[in-house]
Parts: sequence; C-alpha cells; structure tokens
Amino acid sequence: MDKSPFQFPIRIYWEDTDAGGIVFYANYLKFFERARTEWLRTLGFGQQVLRDQSGGMFVVSETAVKYHSPARLDDTLMVTAQLQTGGKASLTIAQSAYLLTSGHADRLLAEGTIRLGWVDSQNLKPSRIPAPVLEALT
Amino acid sequence: MDKSPFQFPIRIYWEDTDAGGIVFYANYLKFFERARTEWLRTLGFGQQVLRDQSGGMFVVSETAVKYHSPARLDDTLMVTAQLQTGGKASLTIAQSAYLLTSGHADRLLAEGTIRLGWVDSQNLKPSRIPAPVLEALT
Amino acid sequence: MDKSPFQFPIRIYWEDTDAGGIVFYANYLKFFERARTEWLRTLGFGQQVLRDQSGGMFVVSETAVKYHSPARLDDTLMVTAQLQTGGKASLTIAQSAYLLTSGHADRLLAEGTIRLGWVDSQNLKPSRIPAPVLEALT
Amino acid sequence: MDKSPFQFPIRIYWEDTDAGGIVFYANYLKFFERARTEWLRTLGFGQQVLRDQSGGMFVVSETAVKYHSPARLDDTLMVTAQLQTGGKASLTIAQSAYLLTSGHADRLLAEGTIRLGWVDSQNLKPSRIPAPVLEALT
Repeated sequence: MDKSPFQFPIRIYWEDTDAGGIVFYANYLKFFERARTEWLRTLGFGQQVLRDQSGGMFVVSETAVKYHSPARLDDTLMVTAQLQTGGKASLTIAQSAYLLTSGHADRLLAEGTIRLGWVDSQNLKPSRIPAPVLEALT
Repeated sequence: MDKSPFQFPIRIYWEDTDAGGIVFYANYLKFFERARTEWLRTLGFGQQVLRDQSGGMFVVSETAVKYHSPARLDDTLMVTAQLQTGGKASLTIAQSAYLLTSGHADRLLAEGTIRLGWVDSQNLKPSRIPAPVLEALT
Repeated sequence: MDKSPFQFPIRIYWEDTDAGGIVFYANYLKFFERARTEWLRTLGFGQQVLRDQSGGMFVVSETAVKYHSPARLDDTLMVTAQLQTGGKASLTIAQSAYLLTSGHADRLLAEGTIRLGWVDSQNLKPSRIPAPVLEALT
Repeated sequence: MDKSPFQFPIRIYWEDTDAGGIVFYANYLKFFERARTEWLRTLGFGQQVLRDQSGGMFVVSETAVKYHSPARLDDTLMVTAQLQTGGKASLTIAQSAYLLTSGHADRLLAEGTIRLGWVDSQNLKPSRIPAPVLEALT
C-alpha cells in the first residue's frame, strides 16, 4: 500500500462544464471512474473482458467526494486512483483530482472514496471479486 | 398525419447547461428522446416492456438538428414529437423544442428529425418494427 | 425539522442507464439536484432568479451517496430533499431516491447528503447565504 | 482542403454507454466536439483563451449525424475533424468516428457535419469569426 497512486490526465471540455462557468460537480465521479478503469486496464483487466470472462462486474456501492476548488474549460486534471482497503467482496478506492499546471499537479480540486462491490452481470447479486483481480489490486 | 404533435414539458437544470451559460446543444437529443419515450408510453409502449416482450428495441440511425435560440437555467421547454414518415424497418420522427413562457410555446429553440430503426436486442441486427407499434404510430 | 421531506418524481430514460442495464450511479447526483431545485422553487427561489437578484449561487462542496438497489429503464423514482443542518455559510441536505411502484415509494435505491455552500457568482468566493433563502429553508 | 483530417483517439467508458449495451448516440456529439476542440488547440486556439481574448465563442447551429455501427465499453474510437466549408460567420466541419482495432481505424461507426457560428460571449449575438481563427482553419 506504499505504492504511489496511479495517475491519469483528463481534459475539460464544454460537455463537462455548467452555467456557473465551472466543471459540474457530478462529473468528478466520471473522471474518477475513467482513472479507475485505466488503472485496472494497466493491471490487465479491461471492463468488458472482465465481464465476458468472469460473468461479473464491479458496481459502485458508495461514493464520498469533497470539492475544494473549481476546474474550468480547457483545464487538464491529473486524476489519481489508489487502493485504500480491499476485501473479498468489496474494495475502497481513494481518488483525487488535481489541476495540472505546467506539468505540476499542485492544486487539489476534489478528493473522495469510491466503494466497489462485485456482482453477477446477469442477476446483479453480490459475489466474490475474482481472485486474479483482487491479487493484482492488493 | 394531420394530428397535432405530442407535447412534453422539460425543465432545464444545472446538469443541462454549459459554461456558455446556455443549454449544451447535445442535450436536445436527450430532450427529444424523453418526449419520444413519453409519446410511445401514451400509446401503450414502454421501452423496457417493448424490449422484454418483443426481443427488440429502437435504435437511432440518424439525427439532424437545427439550433435557433438558446435555453437557460430554469427555463421550461415544450418538446414535441410527431411521425414524419414510417416504414416497416424505420421511422422518421419530427421534433421541436419551444420555450414555454406563461403557458405559451412561442419561441422555437431547436428542431430536427430523428430516424429510428428496429434491431434485435441480442445481436443488434436490423429487424421489422413489431406490427402493433407500427400501427399505433402511423 | 419534523416536516416530511419534499418529494419529486423522476422518470428513467435511456440517457440515464449504462451498459450494466441499470442507472449509472453518478446520475443520482443529478436526480438529487433536480429535486433540490424544485424544492427551492416551491419555496420561491428559482436558481437563475437567485443568481440574478443576489449575485450569488449555491455550490456543492461535499456529496456522500450510498447505492442500495439498482433502477432500470422506464422506472419512476420518487426523490426526496430535506434540510439536515443549516448554517450561515453552508447547508446539508438529506436526499433519498425510492422506486415508485403503483404509487408507493417502498424500495430505497439510494440515499445521501449534499453539502452546499454559497459563493459570489463572479469570483466564486464563499459568502453568506441570503437571509430570505436561509429562513425559508430552516 | 486536400489535407488529411485531424485525428483524435477517444476511449469508451461506462458513462458513455446505455442499457442497450452500446454507446448512447447523443454522445457522439460530445466525441466530435472533443476532437474539434483538440484540433483548434493544435492550431493555437484554446476555447477559454479564445473567449477571454476575443470576447466571443463558437456555438453549434446545426448538427447532422448518421450512425452506422455501435461502439461498446472499452472500445477506442478514432475521431476525425476536417473543414468542409468556411465563411466569415460560420464554418461546417465534417467529422467521423472509426473503431480503432490493432491500431487501424477500419470500421466507420458514425459520421456527420457540425455547423458552427460565432457569437459574442455576453449577448450571444452572431458575429464575425476572428480573422486569425478563420485563417488557421481555412
């Protein structure tokens, strides 16, 4: 758990903003998911492949986000993902979004935790996270 | 075809706007779809029921939209849906969004046409629109 | 605070779902906001009017949501909003989404809290919530 | 106009899909816009900078899209942007989305045209496209 977090850059487009002139807060959940998805992919687990091979998928069971500072059109964010706690049926991922300025991620925009459970793709019932996924993440 | 179009009111929230202070243009496709969905529902065809019973679903094969005037936060739009042309494998629906002011839909904000095909839900292959749906719409 | 919560019905459309066949979890933040917005409107405070008259606006500073059960295409949700705690610079709103079946909101789908701060619309700096708004809500 | 089109890769995440198991059609307008935005950026025109410096911004006045084949979770699309016609007050951009497989963009998923006008950021009235932007694009 002493590894540095996975990092993924995300650009802000018109679609991400609202009439307040800033990024719509709900979109940080999307940004966090993009980063989690790319993190899993680097570990060898594409979402669709996972679903096809294991018959299951991650579902988000809990989200908690604090918003510290707004992002704007054309900004680039650096979004992180790191395992906080992991069990057989659920994982908690710590995630942050920083404003990237001249290559430095120095301003924290938002941070939170995302709790993931694993369910059978067909009946959506809770199930055990496949062992290879759990091993790679923990 | 001389029937007046189906009408459905839609309220504008923060989620619909962008940093230009107006409704993000791509969202009119969502508004048009909400109105089409409610129109089908009044005719007795919920989307999920259609899918469960017929094994098929509508897919959008073509969209064309002209944007005339912007909508803003808190506006209420009146969105219309009306059959333009209908065939055995595809339908074209004419749709418009008006600004609703004091109960009058007097300013045209956007208008367009949406072409729908029918596909098998499993393999996504084109198929014939179920007869009861076609009859109700035409 | 012994008032029953404000309630607002929300229909699920294709736009709200994801490839898991269920409502995409981030969208509950949108549903919660629509209900909050309509609640404020019934109290006499449209978002755009608030912004024009006071020069300020609410911003979301913290969200926490638990997801209990999935919603699907064509479902109708009953979304609630109720003040949990209110201060001069921020409010916490408790919100829930229930599945509406035959007019009864009997299955809890998601619940959470949304913390709102008030900022100046121009410089986005924290400011005091306008007294009439605070009085109406508390 | 004989230049090859600008190309921009876009990954498909859960947020982009719907309960049909495929990318929600309205999202191609977002993908096209991301590609247009990056194209403008490579030419030296960030959207926010444009707005700050010129006091104006592009608005979409017309969109036309044909959907040929669906994209799915984890797919990577190659999205193109190319000037089709350009005038003093409006531009039409031709855009396509291809499925990227083993580095080859061989299957056309969607294609369309986006017509852009230029407006004053404050009053949203039509205006002339700034000369440097027009020169760079045409």
